[in-house]
Amino acid sequence: MLTLDKFHDECGVVAIFAHPEAEKLAYLGLHALQHRGQESAGIVSSDGLNLNQHKAMGLVADIFTEEVLAQLRGSLAIGHTRYSTAGDSALLNAQPIRVQSNKGPIALAHNGNLVNANQIRQRLESQGSIFQTNSDTEVIVHLIALSKEHTLPEAIADALRRVEGAFSLVIMSADRIFAARDPRGFRPLAMGRIPPTEGHTRETIVFASETCAFDLIGAEYLRDVKPGELIVVGPDEITSRFYSTSMAQSSCIFEHVYFSRPDSTVFGRAVQTSRENLGRQLAIESPVEADLVVPVPDSGVTAAMGYSAESGIPFRFALIRNHYVGRTFIEPRQSVRDFGVKLKLNPVRALLEGKRVVLVDDSIVRGTTSQKIVRMIRNAGATEVHMRISCPPTISPCFYGVDTPSKKQLIAANKSVKEIRQYIGADSLAYLSIEGLKKACGDGEKTTYCSACYTGNYPTEIIDVEEILPAGVRR
Amino acid sequence: MLTLDKFHDECGVVAIFAHPEAEKLAYLGLHALQHRGQESAGIVSSDGLNLNQHKAMGLVADIFTEEVLAQLRGSLAIGHTRYSTAGDSALLNAQPIRVQSNKGPIALAHNGNLVNANQIRQRLESQGSIFQTNSDTEVIVHLIALSKEHTLPEAIADALRRVEGAFSLVIMSADRIFAARDPRGFRPLAMGRIPPTEGHTRETIVFASETCAFDLIGAEYLRDVKPGELIVVGPDEITSRFYSTSMAQSSCIFEHVYFSRPDSTVFGRAVQTSRENLGRQLAIESPVEADLVVPVPDSGVTAAMGYSAESGIPFRFALIRNHYVGRTFIEPRQSVRDFGVKLKLNPVRALLEGKRVVLVDDSIVRGTTSQKIVRMIRNAGATEVHMRISCPPTISPCFYGVDTPSKKQLIAANKSVKEIRQYIGADSLAYLSIEGLKKACGDGEKTTYCSACYTGNYPTEIIDVEEILPAGVRR
Amino acid sequence: MLTLDKFHDECGVVAIFAHPEAEKLAYLGLHALQHRGQESAGIVSSDGLNLNQHKAMGLVADIFTEEVLAQLRGSLAIGHTRYSTAGDSALLNAQPIRVQSNKGPIALAHNGNLVNANQIRQRLESQGSIFQTNSDTEVIVHLIALSKEHTLPEAIADALRRVEGAFSLVIMSADRIFAARDPRGFRPLAMGRIPPTEGHTRETIVFASETCAFDLIGAEYLRDVKPGELIVVGPDEITSRFYSTSMAQSSCIFEHVYFSRPDSTVFGRAVQTSRENLGRQLAIESPVEADLVVPVPDSGVTAAMGYSAESGIPFRFALIRNHYVGRTFIEPRQSVRDFGVKLKLNPVRALLEGKRVVLVDDSIVRGTTSQKIVRMIRNAGATEVHMRISCPPTISPCFYGVDTPSKKQLIAANKSVKEIRQYIGADSLAYLSIEGLKKACGDGEKTTYCSACYTGNYPTEIIDVEEILPAGVRR
Amino acid sequence: MLTLDKFHDECGVVAIFAHPEAEKLAYLGLHALQHRGQESAGIVSSDGLNLNQHKAMGLVADIFTEEVLAQLRGSLAIGHTRYSTAGDSALLNAQPIRVQSNKGPIALAHNGNLVNANQIRQRLESQGSIFQTNSDTEVIVHLIALSKEHTLPEAIADALRRVEGAFSLVIMSADRIFAARDPRGFRPLAMGRIPPTEGHTRETIVFASETCAFDLIGAEYLRDVKPGELIVVGPDEITSRFYSTSMAQSSCIFEHVYFSRPDSTVFGRAVQTSRENLGRQLAIESPVEADLVVPVPDSGVTAAMGYSAESGIPFRFALIRNHYVGRTFIEPRQSVRDFGVKLKLNPVRALLEGKRVVLVDDSIVRGTTSQKIVRMIRNAGATEVHMRISCPPTISPCFYGVDTPSKKQLIAANKSVKEIRQYIGADSLAYLSIEGLKKACGDGEKTTYCSACYTGNYPTEIIDVEEILPAGVRR
Repeated sequence: MLTLDKFHDECGVVAIFAHPEAEKLAYLGLHALQHRGQESAGIVSSDGLNLNQHKAMGLVADIFTEEVLAQLRGSLAIGHTRYSTAGDSALLNAQPIRVQSNKGPIALAHNGNLVNANQIRQRLESQGSIFQTNSDTEVIVHLIALSKEHTLPEAIADALRRVEGAFSLVIMSADRIFAARDPRGFRPLAMGRIPPTEGHTRETIVFASETCAFDLIGAEYLRDVKPGELIVVGPDEITSRFYSTSMAQSSCIFEHVYFSRPDSTVFGRAVQTSRENLGRQLAIESPVEADLVVPVPDSGVTAAMGYSAESGIPFRFALIRNHYVGRTFIEPRQSVRDFGVKLKLNPVRALLEGKRVVLVDDSIVRGTTSQKIVRMIRNAGATEVHMRISCPPTISPCFYGVDTPSKKQLIAANKSVKEIRQYIGADSLAYLSIEGLKKACGDGEKTTYCSACYTGNYPTEIIDVEEILPAGVRR
Repeated sequence: MLTLDKFHDECGVVAIFAHPEAEKLAYLGLHALQHRGQESAGIVSSDGLNLNQHKAMGLVADIFTEEVLAQLRGSLAIGHTRYSTAGDSALLNAQPIRVQSNKGPIALAHNGNLVNANQIRQRLESQGSIFQTNSDTEVIVHLIALSKEHTLPEAIADALRRVEGAFSLVIMSADRIFAARDPRGFRPLAMGRIPPTEGHTRETIVFASETCAFDLIGAEYLRDVKPGELIVVGPDEITSRFYSTSMAQSSCIFEHVYFSRPDSTVFGRAVQTSRENLGRQLAIESPVEADLVVPVPDSGVTAAMGYSAESGIPFRFALIRNHYVGRTFIEPRQSVRDFGVKLKLNPVRALLEGKRVVLVDDSIVRGTTSQKIVRMIRNAGATEVHMRISCPPTISPCFYGVDTPSKKQLIAANKSVKEIRQYIGADSLAYLSIEGLKKACGDGEKTTYCSACYTGNYPTEIIDVEEILPAGVRR
Repeated sequence: MLTLDKFHDECGVVAIFAHPEAEKLAYLGLHALQHRGQESAGIVSSDGLNLNQHKAMGLVADIFTEEVLAQLRGSLAIGHTRYSTAGDSALLNAQPIRVQSNKGPIALAHNGNLVNANQIRQRLESQGSIFQTNSDTEVIVHLIALSKEHTLPEAIADALRRVEGAFSLVIMSADRIFAARDPRGFRPLAMGRIPPTEGHTRETIVFASETCAFDLIGAEYLRDVKPGELIVVGPDEITSRFYSTSMAQSSCIFEHVYFSRPDSTVFGRAVQTSRENLGRQLAIESPVEADLVVPVPDSGVTAAMGYSAESGIPFRFALIRNHYVGRTFIEPRQSVRDFGVKLKLNPVRALLEGKRVVLVDDSIVRGTTSQKIVRMIRNAGATEVHMRISCPPTISPCFYGVDTPSKKQLIAANKSVKEIRQYIGADSLAYLSIEGLKKACGDGEKTTYCSACYTGNYPTEIIDVEEILPAGVRR
Repeated sequence: MLTLDKFHDECGVVAIFAHPEAEKLAYLGLHALQHRGQESAGIVSSDGLNLNQHKAMGLVADIFTEEVLAQLRGSLAIGHTRYSTAGDSALLNAQPIRVQSNKGPIALAHNGNLVNANQIRQRLESQGSIFQTNSDTEVIVHLIALSKEHTLPEAIADALRRVEGAFSLVIMSADRIFAARDPRGFRPLAMGRIPPTEGHTRETIVFASETCAFDLIGAEYLRDVKPGELIVVGPDEITSRFYSTSMAQSSCIFEHVYFSRPDSTVFGRAVQTSRENLGRQLAIESPVEADLVVPVPDSGVTAAMGYSAESGIPFRFALIRNHYVGRTFIEPRQSVRDFGVKLKLNPVRALLEGKRVVLVDDSIVRGTTSQKIVRMIRNAGATEVHMRISCPPTISPCFYGVDTPSKKQLIAANKSVKEIRQYIGADSLAYLSIEGLKKACGDGEKTTYCSACYTGNYPTEIIDVEEILPAGVRR
């Protein structure tokens, strides 16, 4: 889903084992995961001997031309798409990371964020290791190479036991794919299969951050990689091991609130179901008398439909998105009021005139965009604007892979709900409760959630990531 | 609105008079009109003496960089965005057309299609005129230059009396803007104003194909250019004349069904209103017992909401669009079933499983895409799929500026509704009636409509455009 | 030959009749003529029915990719390469010009400059003709279309009788090639043939500005198109006519001094022969006691070898050219002395140290570059620098197709030879005499020359081209 | 010098210490060294804290735009330009290499080739080091990081003692530049200075592969870095140490024969002097009665002038180079004979007709190009063609940084001189003797040479580099 630049998406990973066009399936998988990171993408494929890679800045569809894919032919492939920072270091930090090691060539793609990467890195550097990137992911590669274990699966398990934080990983050697999740299961990672067809007689195993990637490539969802699990897919067999003792699961609830596509199944649960429930629960907790429920497209749409269904207030698309918004737009010097929002959204006066409106969105970050949208709706003739947010106030940064703004920038970390209402100029404002959030997302059913961004209760002992990473570097 | 490539959009035009950044307003106006043509765009501006132009293939946001706009600085500007054919002739035929003539430099942008361009061209060529493009629009420029009238307004009026068909035109000389519509008013053209501000002390007059362009640049809608009217906006005054006696108005109903954005006012009527009515009327005419109303995004959304509102059957987004679809996508050799549609749409199994679905779309052209979508919805678990189309069957090509496929390709010109239902695999299929269509769009209120594409009754004496234009050329 | 940007080259034209890969031969021909114009190039080909074109800014090798050439497949083709101005008008004015007319589609490529284009254009515009470009060449196309003659050859002849000035033209219809030179024969145009081969059984006829284009495509030189001659090459026969009565021939002597490649035969004479003679004659007229003859590469090389041969003073490459000079180079703020020249040339100290040097160049335009080169040679240890120029002082602008600077900028139009010597800092300076120039180039043998740029005696009644052309427009 | 693709050039390195625009001087230095590698280039600069880099495929002038250089602002910089292989690995292996290590950030640029890199790499990998590139250079970085020495100069010296082969290195930390040559001095590395100016009050120290880089940036040549020497340039002082005991010097004689620019001083000797001597010596050893001496441009020019001077036979440029040759040229299907050579060279018939020609070139690699040139000269009318080569037959590959073809491809490794003469179709053929070569280049004066490519006598104990490097990888 495109969004009004509220949160920088995290990352998406994909892996394909045993398909004559593995590189093309990886590319299509990344395309389906494009909403998880729009600034760089990469694929590494294996032809059985060598790992070939291509990484570049930009969208998947622009990066991977026929010509580029032709140089990546292979039967195994892994891919990565990410949000990343501008300039030279952006491409440098793009993934997958591919290296030569004593365990042969390996490539690795990571979704998540380690919280002890800096500690490990300092120790490794003091022993003479050299680092090419600013990425926390690079320490995993070093740990694998330095492991005293003699087999690659054992070396990977050894390395994973040494890192802390959030990681869903796909790793490739010349002839095997490895998939692993951290012991708390912060980020999703699903496993699927493509049945044999005429063209190739063996089953293809695939992994992806979200199941929407499976739909596009014709794969069926088998199960999630479990927290603490390492799955090894090789020429002869698929094996699974738990490299870590079990911990309290804490899957990212924000995947259901915002990140994942509504057509995906994430942590074993349909995102669509959660997101509609969020809206229904919001209507139960914070009803209002009004004429229309209007979503802030696209991310507020499903919750708004839930709100409408629960409340009986009609749903209408009264904000039209412009789909052709490019990255940089040139603004007149005599600036048009609320220019940035106007480029993306236009109100439908015929719907709004004289109406009391419930405006549903999935979050308020800095508040500036919400302020402009509320004003835009009033200017189009609405008599009342009631803002409803389908999650609790965001008050704490994430250290597990979501690029939230700092506390200073988060309006809810600095203002009361009443103050926020005044700032954005709404007639009323309500957020979903933390209990309502958990209920809507089925907490305790198939998974239990991390909701640290709403509560400040972090499931790991935090290490300040500001120290770990140079300014401006994220993954 | 992006769409599943059903109809090639026609064109959008914009004109700005008297603004210190006319070129930037033209660019933003074209951006808002991008849905009317995504393959080339151009702007010609005037600095009071010279007309400077830039035309290129691609999207507005990609073509007009800061650098390009800096070379177009002026206080008058006109712009054009269009669908056009591939290759060399595409750019050649891009608009605006700019020429040197005995009436000074002029530039012209045209939305519509002339039906006697070939006749005129043959006559002009026999007299020694040379043509640089394949475009019907070029004959207008010649007629203006050859007119015996001594003033530019009279020469334009003279030229417009000689052409037949559909045209909404904006024309620019070094210091004036001219706006005109054909006597039947086929295509829209709205007039607006930006009030004086601190920065510049005179009112800016603007014209655009749709009012959504006004919203983005902060202009207010004044009125439509009337059928047969020529408005001249000059340094000293704004004048209006009717160059032609009045004719029965026949505005394109397809603008309300499909082309225009729902947030636009077109032919004096909110598109949103028409489009929701289309869905309501469809529910009245062709009800069905079902669990969900599902739109084919994006163009079917508003009608589907109308159908849901009228029928009381819940509306759900059970087809998710991928917003990152690039122009060309690389398909695996071992082709994924229904690949093209899957790239753009993915069903939400959590919503569809076990449900009876009303699928609402705004048209069926060849039927192949509808067939894939119906199959996709069944595969996601729907037990019944009832297709509802928010207009009558498209049976005749358009000669007035819409790029409809030929009769051979139009499924409704060759198959009965029953046969189409079988072809697409739906449990039931219904189209809106022609009467329902006209009622929904308010025929006879502010305008009367041309619905030749549904009836074959053309308001002009047709001249075969196949003869006029070399293969593959459209405007 | 690359040069130190002294004169902007004029244009090169090429035409191919009856070859299965006419577009590729045209492309190679333009490549061989690249030294005549490096800023834009175009090819129009005919497949027997349609004329397809591609024109772009840049070098021939960059513009014409496999993909572009594939769209130009044909058995007839004409091409053009030119120097042109920056910005939008540059591409607009690129050639060939292709139009639709009452004589069918025609395309035209022009080397030279008309001196009555403005007069004609004003008359045509007053009659209702419209112009798309600022180019003098466009009037020829109008005159052809407007001619009362019924056949294309007669209409072309009619048009050519109405224009004055310099023109070597190749014109193409769907199935014929026309080649013509103005009655004074200002600019060259050679005719050649490629014998039939296995692949195609008919002879191919080719035209090009210089014979070096023939060498690359394996054509043999037949003869020059004669002044006042129009050659028509059609499917059945090759015919020749003289559309004009004969005039005193005045071929551009600067082709032999500077423009043409030394491996070309121009005006029936090997350029190599003329250019070596220029150096020999210079040695006879202006001897000096010295240790080395050093050319300013590349254009001064052949004359320097002639000087060395005649004088017996050893020739040495003591200025090395950097072949990798790009268009724009970034200079440090703390500017390197004589940066621009240093980027292109570097002296060889091992050769120059302690030596008396004769520095041979083919012209001094503004004097600034010569000043830097003289200083560079002294700094490398030369004890004396004697500058010798292989033509007379350039004192008058050219109106026949060479882009000379204005009189104000020409140092020799404003300073005496003695003053120039002081300005450039040479120990002595000598130019070739006008008599020596003519003798070296064989004046009166196969051709007689125009040397107006050295004498101010123009062979036509001049019309001020400053009035004809908008600022910055040249051809 | 551009050449007919005989040898892939090796690499060029440059380093700048203490200049306010170090990155621009590095860029200009690389531009002057462009002949040493045309396929990729990179610069790493230091702003005192961070090392910023930019590496890309292409020519220096295309890679380093204003925008790119603006991101590299610093007062220290090193740069590298190289020939490299196509595809993904090319950019990966581009230099400089920049890493984070326990000694801080360092960057390194290498000209040469290590012969024990594979051994070292295997050992390091077995200890857990990971490698990002296929380059032998990367082992040096690892050795520096792993060194037990506590200071960076000592760690570098330690690392250099462990590698064998050819290396001229520039290394940069945040505030220091290190320059070193291998103990045998295979490849050149010169040191220069730019005196303080108004703009900056301290002396700038520079290093470059050839002195022609100094000329462009206004630096004066101080001396060569000596074999086995490590120079450290820091904020407070410049120090020198010899990290290795002295060995027999064996500088690459091919630098004088072919690689270096004639305006450079290499190994303390003007290349121009050597190259002219080569021609003179060749005339002494292998005289012939003839009318003209003709060089194969550009690399054969200076030797041809020496031959002419010694023999008294006139020198003429009878082969004209086309300077606009792009990378890939499109050939007609009906292939033009000797197309590839014709694109680059054209004979001047006016000079060659009826003449006995001495054709001078600097090498024959495969013989195919020589064959075509000899044929081209005969076709232009020469009655005899006597080929003279300004060095001995190339019979052995180089392991020290020159990308010679394999033995199978080297014609002189497989055929006698008589057979080669027959193959290329010359009337006579002579190579320079090994003694003549050494004499011409001043062997034993300021340096002694490695001439292994002509003799097969390698100065190091060779390790088969085929094993070291994956196919297609060179540096």
